[in-house]
Amino acid sequence: MGTLVLALDFGGTKLTAALADTEEISQGQLRWLAHQRALTPPTADALYEYDRMHRLAQTVLDGRQPDAVGISFGGPVEHATGHVRLSHHVAGWENVPLRERFSSRLGVPVTVDNDANIAALGEHHFGAGRGYQDLMYLTISTGVGGGWILGGQPWRGHQSLAGEIGHTVVDPRGPLCLCGKHGCVERLASGPYMAQDAMTYLRDHPDIISPLRGPMVTNDNGLTGRDIAEAAGGGDQVALGILARSGRAVGTGIGHAANLVNPQRFILGGGVTHAGELWWTAVRAAARETALPEIEFDIVPAELGDDAPLWGAVALVYHDLLGHAP
Amino acid sequence: MGTLVLALDFGGTKLTAALADTEEISQGQLRWLAHQRALTPPTADALYEYDRMHRLAQTVLDGRQPDAVGISFGGPVEHATGHVRLSHHVAGWENVPLRERFSSRLGVPVTVDNDANIAALGEHHFGAGRGYQDLMYLTISTGVGGGWILGGQPWRGHQSLAGEIGHTVVDPRGPLCLCGKHGCVERLASGPYMAQDAMTYLRDHPDIISPLRGPMVTNDNGLTGRDIAEAAGGGDQVALGILARSGRAVGTGIGHAANLVNPQRFILGGGVTHAGELWWTAVRAAARETALPEIEFDIVPAELGDDAPLWGAVALVYHDLLGHAP
Repeated sequence: MGTLVLALDFGGTKLTAALADTEEISQGQLRWLAHQRALTPPTADALYEYDRMHRLAQTVLDGRQPDAVGISFGGPVEHATGHVRLSHHVAGWENVPLRERFSSRLGVPVTVDNDANIAALGEHHFGAGRGYQDLMYLTISTGVGGGWILGGQPWRGHQSLAGEIGHTVVDPRGPLCLCGKHGCVERLASGPYMAQDAMTYLRDHPDIISPLRGPMVTNDNGLTGRDIAEAAGGGDQVALGILARSGRAVGTGIGHAANLVNPQRFILGGGVTHAGELWWTAVRAAARETALPEIEFDIVPAELGDDAPLWGAVALVYHDLLGHAP
Repeated sequence: MGTLVLALDFGGTKLTAALADTEEISQGQLRWLAHQRALTPPTADALYEYDRMHRLAQTVLDGRQPDAVGISFGGPVEHATGHVRLSHHVAGWENVPLRERFSSRLGVPVTVDNDANIAALGEHHFGAGRGYQDLMYLTISTGVGGGWILGGQPWRGHQSLAGEIGHTVVDPRGPLCLCGKHGCVERLASGPYMAQDAMTYLRDHPDIISPLRGPMVTNDNGLTGRDIAEAAGGGDQVALGILARSGRAVGTGIGHAANLVNPQRFILGGGVTHAGELWWTAVRAAARETALPEIEFDIVPAELGDDAPLWGAVALVYHDLLGHAP
């Protein structure tokens, strides 16, 4: 038996704990010895999540002692200290020393990073980034975030805030984002904003027939990004227009990032990336138009799926605590 | 006497050679043992520049043998091989093995990089970037370019093309750039484009009184960026408007770069940065509006002036050939 790595993922709406054995990983087997997931109730705060995660961890450990712990957190984290800055989803996470809490409770080394950096490292070691030293990972989901691998190492920036591609502006005359700017990538490309824009458009144009009117009524105006993708798959023009705009916004942001940093590859994950070929075509076309002709890169889907933060947390343990690549 | 470093700068319109002694540098004295400059005639090609530079080098060496050579080139360079890709100003530079040419001719180690990367390294070691590990250098002049220092090391990207902030789009409905996109930073911020836009505006508005009409006539429509800066200094509204737009474009590009890469500091050099306080105020305001509130950085003028590429070439020699910082 090799080193036992406990991987924990504090997601926006769910908590996941899993246990991996490095000997299996070194034999090329990406599987968990144990895996537990719990949904976060809307009333949860930081204390609730911390305790719930600790119990999930005890369940997957089942009496075993881990050798090291890697934690993915869905919000800004100061990697060097392992402090969570805050959560945009759950109250009470301001300045929580998450690394210290788990390392003193479990008595083993712990490392923590935010979900986008973690996913970048996970894809680099186990997914679509294998063999690529310079890459950017983007998640396009309820929000839009990013993480860098540069020269084979995570690049976090001087405040651990690098990768904020979601709030780069691609259309200064576009709609207003919660961040206060107009036409950010996130404002145009994320699932909830796409749903909001579709609803606004359909309310302003009562004569237009669209399958989106069904879910708008049945879900009490709660149209989702998934509804947009499904309607687009059926050929609905409203949904197709909004999806194409999302793809173009992501692609324009990618083109800027390519000009500025010149990585080899962009890896895209998150719910919106499953919206179909039209979206991907729009991403690739806008990125190619935006980047200078001589700047070379490709854009590919993430490979690790829902478990990306967990495999990323395992990769982070290798990187920070075991001192070698998987 | 320490190590003798020969520094060569292939600029867009001039060639410069200079000789430094590392012992003087280690005593904090940034001065040249010898320094020679020659203007490039408009008819010059790559062969002319290569021969002319070799003669300048012989003049500053004056019989001495250098221990190492650093070369700054004003165009894309593949740093790993020392090959110039091309020059946007002078014909015949396509795929020239510049490092090899000089190392075989002078019989000593040579290292080559493009001017923006070189200037970033020069400011990092000798100028406004001392003590900063993560910075971006921008030149705003006849063009707009940039170079990165990340984690104390030059970051060049997988094709040595990182730093192309000049062709990130800040206003997709803005004027057309030679690169084929609308509203690039370079299209809005560089000296020649500012002059062009002022001339177009004044021709379209013959009733507007402006001191810019003087140079437009005397120089046969050859208004320059310097004319714009001077007219703005005198309070001319047309010039002030164009300068403010330039500053806002640069600031918006900086805000995007701050969100994406999270460096500590942006260092700005090049002719346009001498256009006065209005321009700097516009840069800083737009950068602050564009970056997320929690992203911290500052924006300061370059310190090395005209000799930035030469001191950068000396810094590159330390970095690549001497194996330690100055």
